[in-house]
This record gives sequence, structure tokens and C-alpha cells, in this order.
Amino acid sequence: MTQGQETRKRLVETAAGIFNTRGYSGTAVSDLMAATGLQKGGIYRHFESKEQLAVEAFDYAFEMAVRARFQDFDRLTSPLQQLRHFIRNFVHRRSPIPGGCPMVNTAVENDDGNPVLKQRARQAVNVFVDRLVDTIERGIEQGEIKRDTDARTFALLLFSALEGALVVSRLQGSFKPLEAVALTLERYLDERVDLDERTASGKSSH
Amino acid sequence: MTQGQETRKRLVETAAGIFNTRGYSGTAVSDLMAATGLQKGGIYRHFESKEQLAVEAFDYAFEMAVRARFQDFDRLTSPLQQLRHFIRNFVHRRSPIPGGCPMVNTAVENDDGNPVLKQRARQAVNVFVDRLVDTIERGIEQGEIKRDTDARTFALLLFSALEGALVVSRLQGSFKPLEAVALTLERYLDERVDLDERTASGKSSH
Repeated sequence: MTQGQETRKRLVETAAGIFNTRGYSGTAVSDLMAATGLQKGGIYRHFESKEQLAVEAFDYAFEMAVRARFQDFDRLTSPLQQLRHFIRNFVHRRSPIPGGCPMVNTAVENDDGNPVLKQRARQAVNVFVDRLVDTIERGIEQGEIKRDTDARTFALLLFSALEGALVVSRLQGSFKPLEAVALTLERYLDERVDLDERTASGKSSH
Repeated sequence: MTQGQETRKRLVETAAGIFNTRGYSGTAVSDLMAATGLQKGGIYRHFESKEQLAVEAFDYAFEMAVRARFQDFDRLTSPLQQLRHFIRNFVHRRSPIPGGCPMVNTAVENDDGNPVLKQRARQAVNVFVDRLVDTIERGIEQGEIKRDTDARTFALLLFSALEGALVVSRLQGSFKPLEAVALTLERYLDERVDLDERTASGKSSH
């Protein structure tokens, strides 16, 4: 990596925390200069505009959120266990980027705001929810989850309830609301377990 | 109402839509001047600061959201029906203030931002969730809802899931995600109905 590439990478990583904390409107180029020690010209050597930097910073923050929430996800073979693990990760694992969930932050600020960032948030939510839909569908196929489960609706419920509870928790300065909602979702998941299929296929209960 | 009071009221109402759409950071005094036709001096005659106006605008937007979501709520006597009605109102009734939910907007922007607005959002969420907690508790007392229901956790799930789904719906430009999550919550509520108690106390099923 050249020095220029390293500077660019560091700029994106630092900007991710600032944009995710203060928002796109709330971040001035002077904030980015102060945080990175770069002059305005140094920033604009790497990025055409504040918007372009914000988009790359969002992509980075999103990637970090996905890594935290899906950590060790692929090491599990059971879709049911993957879903339980996802819920627990959401509560207990933190992205290193401060400021809460980049998807919700960017969505809420830009749903009537910057169209490029709104589109980016929309794609990110789709990718994220689709991964849950895929997991639930595999769970149904493998006989772990009841066949009458609507995979997309269930995925949306998981995403919406956890994200909503995270907003409440950050507001209250306590993770209790998120923990309580996560536990309810785990119990809800337990009720979706296809016990008949599991017994029929000789699988042991968890 | 004097002309001054009328101007002040109109200013709060107009500012509510602007702050709720663009956010606190994203709203300049010039935006408020353009929307109200007032000069800067005209605005500062009524409010000490942008912050003071934003706080009153938030209170107004919150009141409108409560009115929409709890519309006709008190006309129902059954707590169970009140909860169903609340879920449907959340999906179908809109506050006249554009920009989505003022609680979530203000929480997400200010959880690391303006402490006065953060405090206001926290109080608003508490008031809102407490009203649901109270309804669920009355439902348990009256034998409509199962006794092993944790009222606060259930209220948090309702609030978090609906608010989270509203964020997704606004991002997608479709109310289908919100409708799907609301329907799942109604079914979840159905599963919390205390059928034994209802039969025991001679109440008819809904």
C-alpha cells in the first residue's frame, strides 16, 4: 500500500466514526480536518466531495457492523443456531465505529435528505435482511423451523425490533431494553422451532 | 390569542415539519426564515435560540404523533382491543408533520448530539412506552392477557418493532414492511391472550 493509499484508508476509517456520530449534515469538513490532521486540500486530493467521502465511510461502517453481528455465524451449521447467535451478537458484539447502527443513522437522516446516502442505506438494509431471510429459509428447508413461517416477515421483525430497541437503549444509556427485546425474540424463535420435523428426522432438541 | 401568539404558534408548527424532515443540524435559521416568511429578528423575538425553537417544535411533533397513534384509543374499554387498535393506528394513521417519527428522528440524531433534545426524546419515549405498559398491565389485571407476560418487555417489543419497521418502510418507499411486522405483532398479541381467564370470567371471545 502506498502512503497515499494508507492516508486514504485512514481518512475513511476516521470519517466513518465522525459521520456515524454527528450525521452527514452535522459533519463539517473542518471536523474531518481536525480529526485527521489533514488540510482541506489533503482531504480533497482523495475525495471529490464530502458526499463521496461519506459514502465510502458508510460502506466501511456498514462492513464493520456486519462483521460484528455475523461474527462466527458461518462456523455454525444449523440455521436455527445461526439465528440465535445473530440475536446474541446484536446485543453483545459492538462494531468499533462509534455512534450506533450506521444503517439506521443513515436511513433516518437521509430518508428525506441526501439521495445517494439514502440509496446506500437502502441497499445495505436489503443485503442485511436478505442474509436473515436466506438463513430462515434454510432453517425451513432443513426442517428446523416451521414450514408456515414467512421468512421475509420474520427477518424484518428481527431486524426492526433489534434496531428499534438499540435506538431506545442508546437513548436510555442502558442496554436493558435491547437485552429484553432480544430475549423475547429468542423465545419467539423457540416457538417457531419445528419440533415434529426434528423428531421425525431424528435430530436431538437443543 | 394575540397576533404575536399566533405568529409564535405558526412558527412552531412550521418549524416542526422542517426539523423533523432535515434534522436539527440540517436546519439553518435561513430555512426557517424561508418557510415562515419571517426575518431573523422576527424568529428571535419569539425564541432565544434555534435550540429553544427545536425543543418546542419537537414537543409539538411528538404531540401530533401521540394523537395519531392513540386516536380513538380511549373510546375502547378493552385493553386488548386498545393494543390491537394502537398497532393498526401506527400503520394507518399519519401525523400531519412530515419526516417520520419525531421520537426516532430526534433520538438517532441526538444520542451523541444536542443533550437537551436527547433528553426530550428520552422523556417522550418513556411517556409513550409507559402508556403501552399501563395498557398491557390493565389487560393482565382484567384477565385478557396471560399473567406471565412481562408488560414492559412486551411494550418495548411493540414500540421497537413498529419504529424499526417504519424506518425500513420509509427507506424502501413502501409500507409493506411495516404492514407485515404489524400483522406479526397482532398475531403475537393473539398468542398472549388469556383464553382460560376469558372463559373463566364468562367473557366472549373477540
